[in-house]
Amino acid sequence: MRTIKHPKIDEVTVEQVLYALSDPIRLEIVEKLWRTDEASCNALDGGRPKSSMSHHFRVLRDAGLVWTRNEGVAHMNALRRAELNERFPGLLDAVLSAVRAKSGGLRRHRTSRSR
Amino acid sequence: MRTIKHPKIDEVTVEQVLYALSDPIRLEIVEKLWRTDEASCNALDGGRPKSSMSHHFRVLRDAGLVWTRNEGVAHMNALRRAELNERFPGLLDAVLSAVRAKSGGLRRHRTSRSR
Repeated sequence: MRTIKHPKIDEVTVEQVLYALSDPIRLEIVEKLWRTDEASCNALDGGRPKSSMSHHFRVLRDAGLVWTRNEGVAHMNALRRAELNERFPGLLDAVLSAVRAKSGGLRRHRTSRSR
Repeated sequence: MRTIKHPKIDEVTVEQVLYALSDPIRLEIVEKLWRTDEASCNALDGGRPKSSMSHHFRVLRDAGLVWTRNEGVAHMNALRRAELNERFPGLLDAVLSAVRAKSGGLRRHRTSRSR
């Protein structure tokens, strides 16, 4: 099984982290991982197509947010919480608070009124 | 002079704010505005082409980060700091701390080592 690449936490930029978190599906994955130690891709994909989810997991890994390891045929994912909190103190907390603060914040989109 | 459109702060999503902040030029603008009450586009553009800067200012306005008003022929910009802090408490602080925490963090990019 091929090795899964992860950046060193010092090599990720704040721009990369913010970009990775600027997508509702990726935010949903991070929010789920925040509440658990580790989860399989299947447990996190919300029934979405594997191809698009692979992309989202790669963006999250490249931004230093998620660590993925092989376990048999499954991929197990964990948030790099402690490392991220050391590199960007308070950032993940503030983002996830923002997601939760407003009911439905995660799925909230601009209404037609705002266009 | 045409009216400049701004969303109500309740209509912006956390994803929009994070996306707007995921670009080094836009982060630089926000960081400069953090340290002042108001600044013209010229004072914020770092000598970059007007066409690309117009795009960046529009992304920042659409995300509820920046308020722009006409003053004669100039556009004056201000951070919507209080409103943002009410809507997404601690978020802007955490992002700007992350930008400042590492020397050169704003311009830091992945090294060839990480590829």
